[in-house]
Amino acid sequence: MSELILKGQKAREASYVLANASTTEKNNALEKMAEALIINKDKILKANDLDLKASMEKGTSKAMLDRLALSEERIEAMADGLRQIVSLPDPVGEVISMWKRPNGLQIGQQRVSMGTIGIIYEARPNVTCDAAGLCLKTGNTVILRGGSEAINSNTAIVKVLSKAVEEAGLPKDCIQLVENTSREVALEMMKLNDYIDVLIPRGGAGLIQTVVKNATVPVIETGIGNCHIYVDEECDFEMAKNIVVNAKTSRPGVCNAAEKLLVSEKVAEEFLPIVIRALREKDVEIRGDEKVKAIISDVVDATTEDWGKEYLDYIMAVKIVENVDEAISHINKYGSGHSEAIVTKSYENSQRFMQRTNAAAVYVNASTRFTDGCEFGFGAEIGISTQKLHARGPMGLKELTTIKYIIYGNGQIR
Amino acid sequence: MSELILKGQKAREASYVLANASTTEKNNALEKMAEALIINKDKILKANDLDLKASMEKGTSKAMLDRLALSEERIEAMADGLRQIVSLPDPVGEVISMWKRPNGLQIGQQRVSMGTIGIIYEARPNVTCDAAGLCLKTGNTVILRGGSEAINSNTAIVKVLSKAVEEAGLPKDCIQLVENTSREVALEMMKLNDYIDVLIPRGGAGLIQTVVKNATVPVIETGIGNCHIYVDEECDFEMAKNIVVNAKTSRPGVCNAAEKLLVSEKVAEEFLPIVIRALREKDVEIRGDEKVKAIISDVVDATTEDWGKEYLDYIMAVKIVENVDEAISHINKYGSGHSEAIVTKSYENSQRFMQRTNAAAVYVNASTRFTDGCEFGFGAEIGISTQKLHARGPMGLKELTTIKYIIYGNGQIR
Repeated sequence: MSELILKGQKAREASYVLANASTTEKNNALEKMAEALIINKDKILKANDLDLKASMEKGTSKAMLDRLALSEERIEAMADGLRQIVSLPDPVGEVISMWKRPNGLQIGQQRVSMGTIGIIYEARPNVTCDAAGLCLKTGNTVILRGGSEAINSNTAIVKVLSKAVEEAGLPKDCIQLVENTSREVALEMMKLNDYIDVLIPRGGAGLIQTVVKNATVPVIETGIGNCHIYVDEECDFEMAKNIVVNAKTSRPGVCNAAEKLLVSEKVAEEFLPIVIRALREKDVEIRGDEKVKAIISDVVDATTEDWGKEYLDYIMAVKIVENVDEAISHINKYGSGHSEAIVTKSYENSQRFMQRTNAAAVYVNASTRFTDGCEFGFGAEIGISTQKLHARGPMGLKELTTIKYIIYGNGQIR
Repeated sequence: MSELILKGQKAREASYVLANASTTEKNNALEKMAEALIINKDKILKANDLDLKASMEKGTSKAMLDRLALSEERIEAMADGLRQIVSLPDPVGEVISMWKRPNGLQIGQQRVSMGTIGIIYEARPNVTCDAAGLCLKTGNTVILRGGSEAINSNTAIVKVLSKAVEEAGLPKDCIQLVENTSREVALEMMKLNDYIDVLIPRGGAGLIQTVVKNATVPVIETGIGNCHIYVDEECDFEMAKNIVVNAKTSRPGVCNAAEKLLVSEKVAEEFLPIVIRALREKDVEIRGDEKVKAIISDVVDATTEDWGKEYLDYIMAVKIVENVDEAISHINKYGSGHSEAIVTKSYENSQRFMQRTNAAAVYVNASTRFTDGCEFGFGAEIGISTQKLHARGPMGLKELTTIKYIIYGNGQIR
């Protein structure tokens, strides 16, 4: 029996206990997990040092090293994250609706735990803690598979957390880590249908595509964002400029950052110089089509490839479109279904854009940067789904549950 | 470009129109589809004759031929089915909830169409019509892939339906059939992620497993039912007997029929003779473990394989268990997560069974045969999901939609 099947069986056994644990029991475990992180921070930092040294020897980029690095503050932030999860309402057990049929059967839809959730993710060790906390709160056992770069950090964190869970009176197998970080074991995990109910990949486009292509376990696809801002023919230029600059530059490396700017041909001549000047002040490289170049000569050529690309960098491609309809069809063709925004004063165009744009989140007169579980008011986030099945957009605690029909009868037969 | 990619592109194009069609436009199309079936029934019956002849030459079983056969009445029933869909409320456009954030952003969750749905199914040609109607009502274009045995019937039905849709002013590509019924094309369809948003297999265990294993498109797994009735230590024997007999024999070939009977050891000696006599009067073969044989000597041996099996036949395997907890753990180990029932007078055991049994539908004192979209009051059903992602249990119109976040701002940046 493989290590993974064994872990799967343990996760399944533990899930029967955890799914029926009370909110108080789960909150106690989360509190103990937070405490344990603080108590054991030296151990965790030591393990993180090993990872950092190994990565430095391999010549890993500075940005990657920063994502991998832990510090006292970052461990405290992880503990705070767990305490925040304590304060959120427990979705498990909620009866969403209940009705009575003519034959007297009373049928209800109740929110219940999924069972076991698999998370496959990349370098950041704080994901280990976040994901473990969110799964625990929703009564799900979790099998975590982080990257090899963070294996020492992740092993140390999971050891601390699962021991705390055990001390709180719940099974230690509620939180498990796949220690073998080989590609083969990752592929095995993607096909572990008997023991994993849903698989959530968190990371770059490459990781997500590998999971989508290989998994037979149901997957929630997350996080690729090729987001657009469309500046309509009637709009407040100051508002439009602020939204574009914010959506592009407030944090260019995240999935809800804007990558593309579409401008109505009616306002392009007047608006482009304003917005491009502002973007360039923030060191954004501008790429444009022929029509853009006719207005601003010194921009880089935008190729067809650009329209489908997620830069995650200080780059923005600009296109002039005839009207709101061309903007919508361009977005529906090249967008990734994440977040799309229109800046307009027109009631008709705002409604048209809202209804016809195919994306998880569609904005009128606001920055795409708000697509986030905390900004939406969910209190936490396990990722942002860009698929249409089960969850779309930011996923909070509810999205980590499923439903079950509960039916009360008094002898009904059909 | 393959036939299938071409169909995928047409389905995608049509979906942008259909997703924004009004309820009135969609209902008109459904009415026209129903009319067209009646007007063209001779054509459809002629095509069905070709399928029946080909199947008879191959020596197909009588049961299969019956599932394949159409008649005037069956075509009328298909048309009635479409008219019933007209009368159901349209879920598309419903704003499920909307709230305001401290920064003034107004965020809503709106039900929207999925886009394009793929259905892979077996012999029954009426599925072609049902699925087409349900997808159209929910604003989804559909790509249907039926079995080779029904290809002439399905081709005739889809031709009639898509022409009716066109006459109603919607794109004819809202409803398309994959005419090439080869395995290769089916496999290609399972990986058509660019054009199909969700894939629903309808058919036997073999078909569903093939889809789950090969699909990269998100799948909703449907319909395998290894359902149990647990007869508890305190119960009304008459009620228990009626529920068991109904769940086993009212329609043994469907997924919500009971396959297993678990009986508390406290009542086994008294209850087993009663229920087994009643089941045998309906020609049910009884299989049992050693403990059952100690009470009723002339039963077939139940093997380990029996506990996981879906018979879809007049067979029931019986096991004596210690108490409700053993019943729950047996079900959670061998069940398919479809429908499970307890018959009891005990409040505590009813609650324990309800909470701890892992299935789409859990019953107290009623037959598992009620797990059905119409019996639940949904007015229609596209299948019964046995997975936990997106939909669980009977799927009506709502389950064929997804959500989209709609966000109204007035210049918010982050």
